[in-house]
Amino acid sequence: MTYLNTPTSSGFRPPAVPDVDVHGFWGERIDAVADKTVMILYDRCVAAGMFDQIDPDRPVPELRLPYHLRSDGSPDTVNVQMFWDSDVAKVIEAAAYVLYRKPNPDLEAKVDAIIDMFYRLQLPDGYLNSWFIRMQPGKRWLNLRDHHELYCAGHLIEAAVAYFHATGKRRLLDVMCRYADHIDQTFGPQPVQKPGYCGHEEIELALIRLGRATGEQRYLDLARFFIEQRGQQPHYFDEEAAARGADPKQFRHRTYEYNQSHLPVRQQTKVIGHAVRAMYLYSGMADVATEFGDNSLTDALKVLWDDLTTKQMYVTGGIGPAASNEGFTDYYDLPNHNAYAETCAAVGLVMWASRMLGRGPDRLYADIMEQALYNGALSGLAADGATFFYDNPLESNGSHHRWTWHRCPCCPPNIARTVASIGSYMYGVSSDELAVHLYGDSTARLALGSTAVTIAQRTDYPWDGRIALTVGVDAPAAFRLALRVPGWCGQARLSIDGEVIDVAAVEDKGYLRIDRLWQGGERVVLDLPMDVRALHANPAVRADIGRVALARGPMIYCAEEIDNGGELHSLILTGDVSEADTASIEGLDKAVAINVKAKREVWRDWQGKLYDTGEPTLKDTTARFLPYFLWDNREPGEMLVWVRAQK
Amino acid sequence: MTYLNTPTSSGFRPPAVPDVDVHGFWGERIDAVADKTVMILYDRCVAAGMFDQIDPDRPVPELRLPYHLRSDGSPDTVNVQMFWDSDVAKVIEAAAYVLYRKPNPDLEAKVDAIIDMFYRLQLPDGYLNSWFIRMQPGKRWLNLRDHHELYCAGHLIEAAVAYFHATGKRRLLDVMCRYADHIDQTFGPQPVQKPGYCGHEEIELALIRLGRATGEQRYLDLARFFIEQRGQQPHYFDEEAAARGADPKQFRHRTYEYNQSHLPVRQQTKVIGHAVRAMYLYSGMADVATEFGDNSLTDALKVLWDDLTTKQMYVTGGIGPAASNEGFTDYYDLPNHNAYAETCAAVGLVMWASRMLGRGPDRLYADIMEQALYNGALSGLAADGATFFYDNPLESNGSHHRWTWHRCPCCPPNIARTVASIGSYMYGVSSDELAVHLYGDSTARLALGSTAVTIAQRTDYPWDGRIALTVGVDAPAAFRLALRVPGWCGQARLSIDGEVIDVAAVEDKGYLRIDRLWQGGERVVLDLPMDVRALHANPAVRADIGRVALARGPMIYCAEEIDNGGELHSLILTGDVSEADTASIEGLDKAVAINVKAKREVWRDWQGKLYDTGEPTLKDTTARFLPYFLWDNREPGEMLVWVRAQK
Repeated sequence: MTYLNTPTSSGFRPPAVPDVDVHGFWGERIDAVADKTVMILYDRCVAAGMFDQIDPDRPVPELRLPYHLRSDGSPDTVNVQMFWDSDVAKVIEAAAYVLYRKPNPDLEAKVDAIIDMFYRLQLPDGYLNSWFIRMQPGKRWLNLRDHHELYCAGHLIEAAVAYFHATGKRRLLDVMCRYADHIDQTFGPQPVQKPGYCGHEEIELALIRLGRATGEQRYLDLARFFIEQRGQQPHYFDEEAAARGADPKQFRHRTYEYNQSHLPVRQQTKVIGHAVRAMYLYSGMADVATEFGDNSLTDALKVLWDDLTTKQMYVTGGIGPAASNEGFTDYYDLPNHNAYAETCAAVGLVMWASRMLGRGPDRLYADIMEQALYNGALSGLAADGATFFYDNPLESNGSHHRWTWHRCPCCPPNIARTVASIGSYMYGVSSDELAVHLYGDSTARLALGSTAVTIAQRTDYPWDGRIALTVGVDAPAAFRLALRVPGWCGQARLSIDGEVIDVAAVEDKGYLRIDRLWQGGERVVLDLPMDVRALHANPAVRADIGRVALARGPMIYCAEEIDNGGELHSLILTGDVSEADTASIEGLDKAVAINVKAKREVWRDWQGKLYDTGEPTLKDTTARFLPYFLWDNREPGEMLVWVRAQK
Repeated sequence: MTYLNTPTSSGFRPPAVPDVDVHGFWGERIDAVADKTVMILYDRCVAAGMFDQIDPDRPVPELRLPYHLRSDGSPDTVNVQMFWDSDVAKVIEAAAYVLYRKPNPDLEAKVDAIIDMFYRLQLPDGYLNSWFIRMQPGKRWLNLRDHHELYCAGHLIEAAVAYFHATGKRRLLDVMCRYADHIDQTFGPQPVQKPGYCGHEEIELALIRLGRATGEQRYLDLARFFIEQRGQQPHYFDEEAAARGADPKQFRHRTYEYNQSHLPVRQQTKVIGHAVRAMYLYSGMADVATEFGDNSLTDALKVLWDDLTTKQMYVTGGIGPAASNEGFTDYYDLPNHNAYAETCAAVGLVMWASRMLGRGPDRLYADIMEQALYNGALSGLAADGATFFYDNPLESNGSHHRWTWHRCPCCPPNIARTVASIGSYMYGVSSDELAVHLYGDSTARLALGSTAVTIAQRTDYPWDGRIALTVGVDAPAAFRLALRVPGWCGQARLSIDGEVIDVAAVEDKGYLRIDRLWQGGERVVLDLPMDVRALHANPAVRADIGRVALARGPMIYCAEEIDNGGELHSLILTGDVSEADTASIEGLDKAVAINVKAKREVWRDWQGKLYDTGEPTLKDTTARFLPYFLWDNREPGEMLVWVRAQK
């Protein structure tokens, strides 16, 4: 197989995580993951019996195990899942990032023991999947559509790369290279190979990561192969179903739109199907576009990006409104109360957005990355790192609360690994340009080609819009520094060593691009005004008509019962939000609340009636809003993002 | 078994259907059922293969049959259903009412042929159920919880009574009396009997109907037995499951709340579970309360009535918001767009309400009967009688349309039989009082004890509130005439032979009660002002906050795209509805539309954005509303009941 394009070095890639020390807002969140979440994740894997499935020296487990994690403490059972390798992999990956942050010999020993299980489990030919080695031996690669084998491989590859970067230990990386080589032999265009691809995308982006970490071109090529094969005719999922004697039409999800294999990827124009699958596919496509400089792939992705972000995305960056397919429905169908908006899907959008930046800095992508990150993704993790949201509605009658765990435990380790690796989303580096996509108190050591650069950010972002960056170089170096000015920001101000820069003159695609011979020690100060904004939804979004959502900086806000009393739907914003006050929130550190004058419907005595001609009366009140991601961290109660507005 | 109460003659009962000739609004609807619906129902029974199951002289059918009723005409299959006897029974019942209305030898011959099938099918011991005689012989009465046997029997009994009244033919009535006798022997408190009851209520109200028609007390007693047994411990459904070797806990619907057997009926205080089941149970309870003068049962029903109508009912009288259990959820959970609100459930509410009037005239029940009848029930039948709604949402984005049929074909014959028997809901008669519950152009021949009375109503109700009644008696007779004044009505006016009556002086529970020695020929004129009303929902109903529903007389109104253009959610009612105009609707006969001044959000160019700080602007417009039950009878499009309001 030949490709039109060859790998390119002009793309922007994220730095390896260990190169960014994160403090401030994200530092606290990583500490919560390091101090609490990771051990919770590990313990839950133990409780769910995952290691009984993986460890080849233990008895093969039953398909149904006792499980003791109901909120009321009552005994329960759990089905052994064929995708558990992936959940364990995400735990290893999250552990890797926190081990880089602070030593934890106990955790490291536990992870080493898991890695040893996989090492012992791996078959001589390199194959490695606990389900098809232990639970259903002899069934490997028979049902790529449903069986998550390559998906599990992908997550283990990501874990291997992260653990190698964090600890320098190669064992899992070597195991996964052997497995990747086996996959590379198994799948491909040759007659002896399978021309297939996974029903749950993930292997593609993982192979790119492995290729970048090892320098092995064949992993990049294999990622590209999977992308190119997807949706081709004759359809692989039809053929493999027929080969195993099954009716291809008897697919539980009915249409291959569910796993985005209904068309070759370049012909896809609508974001459709299972949301996480879609995000992982587009992430892999974007990575391939970056590595191979593939403009046709980038063009296809731009169409999909527009489709998602202008017709199918919650204001929180949450995506996939429906529980039935864990995914997309009709355009503008964005119900608030029963929004599915899975944490993993918002994480997936962050991943896709970050990879769209591989073709160069562009606010179109970075703004959405930030929006999804601070809102629909981060809401999945409690402030103390101990509990989780799986679905992230934008309205609750008080019945929606964080889980200690979930039967499909994909989200907790996914948001944990994302938070713990936040440094890799903050920067993009090419050979001659350094882009700052996200702001946050941190110190990064980056390499532009052979030039080592440090960027120290001192800021209270996202609570305050002033960011002071100090550029460090070993010797004077010429490169472009690109600083994102978010679209939500009014007039940004920039100075370097006190000299005011004409922002309009240097802005391109929402980035301030400063070409300069850097001497080292330059102090770059960026001010991003953070006014409170009242956002309206496109009126095609029926659920939000007549309502506004408050925002400040990258944060979307919500009202909670603890601050406003119940019946939040009786609140009406009538005034101008530019007169809103900000305030701190007790018990939530530096988080900034918004107080705004409002009206409230007075609930007269309805005398037991359900419908009546009497009109409501209004009284003055002050409504308090807090960042959406922080809801359900104090007293449980109602929550509302889209509040009625009337002028 | 002994009961505290004995059958009573003080209750109010409906007249037999043939005693009311219906004209005007309902007359047209009955004609549509007679001229079109009934033959459609029959043809669909044929197409679905129902008679192949019932006719003992045909080969036993396969479990899956070809079926050709997809809207696109493509071939399909249908599962044979164990409850098909009930659907055929409802078709017979509807046919009976229309045969009374106008002769139809072809239809009558068809029904006689069906009855002949049941006659030939019946076993020597009286048992009669096509599924358990033909499809699963030897399995009778093993699973009352799930198998609908007594439910099917109940509908066949109702059909038998109706067909006897309409045609004077006793064959089906005799068949069903034999079956009822078999049931009476099978179920009861004796050790050789089963202390069970049906998982889908219906037999109870049917036995009351059979008892009234035949004068046989044992049918009333058996109805009462089933009511009294429900929910008793040890739980019958647990015991029968264990007896057939099944785990009682493995119940698909998890809790016996689903079929209202979680508690003995007098201990039930929350309307819960499957909506149709609940309505049929309460209907049977109300009938038993009437027949036995059972005040404790009536008291229990009053609690349930209050629970349903003040916390769980749509403004259309639709009930059961959730598709998942075809039933009830949380209080005030009344979503509009995805309302289930099954036609059968609204029909069931009409049935329950009419039976609550068995203890005496009371607007509390009659108003809701009318509300559910004209709105949530009647919406299930197209104006031409040819198509049907199964679920009745209060808002549609244009994708909800009437079916030619439904896989679970319960609703079409249910609304058809209700419309065709509307006369039986209009009046209640006790030994010395005649109550007019519903108004409509008609002539009724009623019996108060031995006194024959005719009531001729001349009116354009429900489009106009003036009703002129003429009372006819063979000889002067003293009785009370009770005329309902609906709660939606402002100041009613009443005159008899031109003499104005002081309404306040004679009103009791919303009925004007006129005690008089009637000479015959008296002209009673009632004026019920029909102002347009803007209804607000109790603010606990989140879905309706900030919105109003327009109403006039018994009709709830909605806006349709054909009259108002699309994007109905951008409409805002700002004015006073007392200034609304009424108008006729082209192609919809005498139906009254409402025109009201409103605002409309101007949809500026959003330039592909989904969220933005720009504020909407409003322009003046006139919005047109039509009766909810008439929607989706013209051009398909959007529909909205609860419209935004702002003052």
